[in-house]
Amino acid sequence: MTIQFRVPEAKMIDLPRPYALFLGDTTAPRYAKTAFGLKDWAPELCLVECALPEATVSVGLPRRTPAQAYAAGARGFVIGVAAQGGQIVPQWVPMLVEALEAGLDIISGMHSSVDDVPALKAAVARTGRRVIDVRRPPANLPVGDGRKRSGKRLLTVGTDCALGKKYTALALARAFRAAGVATDFRATGQTGIMIAGAGIPIDSVVADFISGAAETLSPDAAPDHWDVIEGQGALFHPSYAGVSMGLLHGSQPDVIVMCHEPYRTDILGTAGYKVPSLPDAIALNLRIGGLTNPRIRCAGISFNTADLSDEEAETVMLAAERETGLPVADPIRGGPAFAKSFERLVAACLA
Amino acid sequence: MTIQFRVPEAKMIDLPRPYALFLGDTTAPRYAKTAFGLKDWAPELCLVECALPEATVSVGLPRRTPAQAYAAGARGFVIGVAAQGGQIVPQWVPMLVEALEAGLDIISGMHSSVDDVPALKAAVARTGRRVIDVRRPPANLPVGDGRKRSGKRLLTVGTDCALGKKYTALALARAFRAAGVATDFRATGQTGIMIAGAGIPIDSVVADFISGAAETLSPDAAPDHWDVIEGQGALFHPSYAGVSMGLLHGSQPDVIVMCHEPYRTDILGTAGYKVPSLPDAIALNLRIGGLTNPRIRCAGISFNTADLSDEEAETVMLAAERETGLPVADPIRGGPAFAKSFERLVAACLA
Repeated sequence: MTIQFRVPEAKMIDLPRPYALFLGDTTAPRYAKTAFGLKDWAPELCLVECALPEATVSVGLPRRTPAQAYAAGARGFVIGVAAQGGQIVPQWVPMLVEALEAGLDIISGMHSSVDDVPALKAAVARTGRRVIDVRRPPANLPVGDGRKRSGKRLLTVGTDCALGKKYTALALARAFRAAGVATDFRATGQTGIMIAGAGIPIDSVVADFISGAAETLSPDAAPDHWDVIEGQGALFHPSYAGVSMGLLHGSQPDVIVMCHEPYRTDILGTAGYKVPSLPDAIALNLRIGGLTNPRIRCAGISFNTADLSDEEAETVMLAAERETGLPVADPIRGGPAFAKSFERLVAACLA
Repeated sequence: MTIQFRVPEAKMIDLPRPYALFLGDTTAPRYAKTAFGLKDWAPELCLVECALPEATVSVGLPRRTPAQAYAAGARGFVIGVAAQGGQIVPQWVPMLVEALEAGLDIISGMHSSVDDVPALKAAVARTGRRVIDVRRPPANLPVGDGRKRSGKRLLTVGTDCALGKKYTALALARAFRAAGVATDFRATGQTGIMIAGAGIPIDSVVADFISGAAETLSPDAAPDHWDVIEGQGALFHPSYAGVSMGLLHGSQPDVIVMCHEPYRTDILGTAGYKVPSLPDAIALNLRIGGLTNPRIRCAGISFNTADLSDEEAETVMLAAERETGLPVADPIRGGPAFAKSFERLVAACLA
């Protein structure tokens, strides 16, 4: 229990926008996953791309120098490329320095900190610009108090980690907006924060402040406004359930959507822990979420069927609909049948 | 989800012992609560007391100078006194410096850090001694993996915060030892850590590492060895449930003891949240704890009846026994009837 002597105004991370996407020297698109994700999910934030001459990968934006990017209006220089071990590699450093000198702030989800890279550290001191680590939570987060907030909230939850909670939330937020509903996507992880331009990396918060961070992330809003909140972890995951629990309590969701990967049997990163059944996972989330929002309901299920054929995907989704009585969709999968089931899921969320 | 590139050996806080208890200039025993608690619960660790001439309070140990304390064998100089706002006050500083110069390490649960007190910071640099903050978790904690560990474990849980989880664990650990059972008290908060001489302040750990910290705190042990683990927070507390959940998962308790304060109706520090019923609180803890230890059971209930008469205490405890079918005891309350009920609770834990 943390005793707070003063409660300063808590803030979420708020990134300088729009972005120039930095692709480094990459020649393999899979290393530029972050840049492609930003281009797909936040096209309105992505102005130009910057890269070294060796790079052969493009996300399809105009290629500019950092100074041109700044002149065009860019304010954040996002490291949209990954290297071995999550490090900032030496060949990127001259262009990162150039970006700071052009007036851009660097946005990084790398494991290297600015202190690990002397040339970058010196450039920060010289220019007064920032290297913003999206894995680092804001200061001054409050302890949660459980006060009911106005507005509507949806949280994506899961039967395990890494099975589509972020993309489900993004797809639902996009669909809500397309239906004319005022909606914010609320990001709780580093990629989501870059996509939203704001958020809190909830798993990096000090334990006493998990639910307080979640409360800060989705503040009071208009009664018909929706926050669609990116879930983290899983209540049945022996490593991360504390994060999931605090996020569930602090989010006070009116609606949860259960994310699941069919045929996954074992919980990731553990020895012998089994993925729970959908009814068990839904029941425990509703029971726990009911503490801070007694009207919580599960509107439906989001399947990650990337590894399945159309036929297999339809079969497992139908079986899950029968088992749970809830709409089941894969929000990412293309094709008219799948679009239809996603429409049903969206309608069930907003019902 | 935190990606770990290397997993260095994780350690819990391990305090230099035995202690000299520092009482400052205090004239009111209530400000020396920490020192009295240490004297009561860890008498074998408490060698001498040190105080300023103005102090009128004593915990009953020989009063010595820091140099005499060191010569007598003391190695930790525990700030056992509190001041307004949890700060290190200026009048203490000369004796704190004297302690460092005598070769003692300072053990502090104060909100001031050593960086806030220039004279102390200089003395640390000069002497090479340490000021150990028991509110600060050790580095290199791992992500939990849920692997079943050998040995037996008991965790105290609660219907709310601040109703006796620490003292229940201490009393049970003492009773287990008295019964000839090899037992360690495992501390998760600052006072408990000072009493045990070791531990991890679990609510200050980064969210991703809660269950990993709990796993580190109670390592593999002999099959008939018991760890009695100090609980934190409550699963029904909208501020702290994430901590309680990770601690429950990582502790893998064979036995839980539910701590409760009769007549407390509202959850502390929240607006309108109600203390759950004992059956509800027990059921949710068993359900969640069952993930990492399917053989978990609730052995009984610990009541904090400090505010009640003997008659009232007996009445509410009997009623709770009838409601739950479990032994109910107040481990702190004196008197033969209460000692008897505590014996029953201890027997049920070890059964």
